[in-house]
Amino acid sequence: MRITVLAGGIGGARFTRGLLHHLRTAAPGSEVTVIGNTGDDIRLFGLQICPDLDTVMYSLGDGISVERGWGREDETFTIKEELAAYGVQPGWFGLGDRDTATHLVRSQMLAGGYPLSAVTSALCERWQPGVRLIPMSDDRVETHVIVDGDEPGTRRAIHFQEWWIKHRAALPAHGFVLVGVDVAKPAPGVLEAISDTDLLLLPPSNPVVSIGTILQVAGIRDAVLATTAPVVGVSPIVGGAPVRGMADACLSAIGVETSAAAVARHYGARQPTPGGGDAAGLLDGWLVHAASDAGAVHELTPLGIATRAVPLLMTDLDATAEIAAAAIDLAESVRR
Amino acid sequence: MRITVLAGGIGGARFTRGLLHHLRTAAPGSEVTVIGNTGDDIRLFGLQICPDLDTVMYSLGDGISVERGWGREDETFTIKEELAAYGVQPGWFGLGDRDTATHLVRSQMLAGGYPLSAVTSALCERWQPGVRLIPMSDDRVETHVIVDGDEPGTRRAIHFQEWWIKHRAALPAHGFVLVGVDVAKPAPGVLEAISDTDLLLLPPSNPVVSIGTILQVAGIRDAVLATTAPVVGVSPIVGGAPVRGMADACLSAIGVETSAAAVARHYGARQPTPGGGDAAGLLDGWLVHAASDAGAVHELTPLGIATRAVPLLMTDLDATAEIAAAAIDLAESVRR
Repeated sequence: MRITVLAGGIGGARFTRGLLHHLRTAAPGSEVTVIGNTGDDIRLFGLQICPDLDTVMYSLGDGISVERGWGREDETFTIKEELAAYGVQPGWFGLGDRDTATHLVRSQMLAGGYPLSAVTSALCERWQPGVRLIPMSDDRVETHVIVDGDEPGTRRAIHFQEWWIKHRAALPAHGFVLVGVDVAKPAPGVLEAISDTDLLLLPPSNPVVSIGTILQVAGIRDAVLATTAPVVGVSPIVGGAPVRGMADACLSAIGVETSAAAVARHYGARQPTPGGGDAAGLLDGWLVHAASDAGAVHELTPLGIATRAVPLLMTDLDATAEIAAAAIDLAESVRR
Repeated sequence: MRITVLAGGIGGARFTRGLLHHLRTAAPGSEVTVIGNTGDDIRLFGLQICPDLDTVMYSLGDGISVERGWGREDETFTIKEELAAYGVQPGWFGLGDRDTATHLVRSQMLAGGYPLSAVTSALCERWQPGVRLIPMSDDRVETHVIVDGDEPGTRRAIHFQEWWIKHRAALPAHGFVLVGVDVAKPAPGVLEAISDTDLLLLPPSNPVVSIGTILQVAGIRDAVLATTAPVVGVSPIVGGAPVRGMADACLSAIGVETSAAAVARHYGARQPTPGGGDAAGLLDGWLVHAASDAGAVHELTPLGIATRAVPLLMTDLDATAEIAAAAIDLAESVRR
């Protein structure tokens, strides 16, 4: 089976790890492609940093800090301290020493003319993540957040990472601007991985600044709409709050309620229904958390989104594999 | 008193540390300028690395590894390990994590258009070395070493650092090539620091690939010849061997015997003597190690190089300060 996953960082990486664990016994020989968000990439200290790609790569390559969920295990932060001692800004970015080696290799390959997709493949030679990891685009797309300016009535845009890390997403966001998205093209293989797949999964990644960003690259959303493969998503919202991260702040910035059902309605149903579901949506199926959100099943099904309630907490690898299994099972039930 | 020092790495840095210690009580208010060798600079992993400048800066700023003599105290080498895990070459360079922050800041400032002299000043804002540290040139000059090629009768050039670190200077060297020296200009302030000084010191740095390199930058040798200040050197050779490092391999590559007297003859006397000393040499005075090289006093004095034998082992700060004091005392005796 060919499976394609649109992934952000921690949520997407953990889900994919469970997916691979499930496939190892349930469908050995399956090929998984992960299309990674690069909207949160940032250039700092001369280093090109791709937090989401690295989180996927490290997670699937057993190099991730299990405790933090990002960055490397056994990480140290001496370079960060040293840069601060030189007075170099910003000080809020968690630049790990081990991680820096990845950034150095990437930055050098990019400087040498390799596209990010080739660089990512090269880095994955070491990590052997067990998936084909492709950045959504080789072109630079950077998520900026519109926040209040210093003067009343004014607004300014700050890099997503500054908003997310420095301000812990606590500055009210009025929206997101994807710098460069107007000219960005999907990386080689991205559109094919969506059109020529047996199953497209939206893991419990941030629906706004991770999956939402990927979908804004020219052609990707249309490819999802057009693929013959079933499209099944896993709710990142459990009981009205993000399982992890601050997706609520992102959702409220675009006027979407923080609930499993609202996120599904935001993605929309692929199949218009007699009952009048959204046209041109993305989802065939949707998983919500059984203990808290079972009510969404009855709300969403009439909209054309086949919804099931199962346990959605990725507490360990087995529990996560169960979620992936449920997503695959749901996909089979909606396959046209 | 204004004192200018032409320095390489460890030897020059330790000597200058002793010099500052001596001046603190003997001549407070003295201004010391160090002109640093940049011929052993190397660009690796996208980082511009200036080993000699950093050794001086860290040594005088109390950040040096006392045990190693180069790099930072409390250093770790995780980035080096990680780069090796990616298969990135070369693996022989001792890239420390703390050190990497310095290289990142320097590389970024250089990429931003600042000349190396301005970058060095900026880095010294943190380290407060107590001297004005100026690179010999803002232009790139790289020492390469001519060694045997793979085929008999052929030769090839390798970067000085590869020869020095990877091969421990054990590959026979047929000479040195300073790539870029034909167009390099002295950095701002270098020539003035030589002409407008009260004393010019050649510390026990490598006479070939440190001081010898500095002297090859256009105008520097002529400025030394022309300065009215006395020029006094400290022998890096004690009892027929380098005190530290592999200067013997460098000396033999240019056909100079590894002895205190031979190095002095290589530098040459500034004042032609009735006895027929070398014309257009550099030295007014020369210190040799009393316990092993006192015989050089009688050999060199007739050549016009005022030579004294004193203890030259920089075993601790006080002993090093004594050497600096002896150099200053000798300079006063030859001042014209």
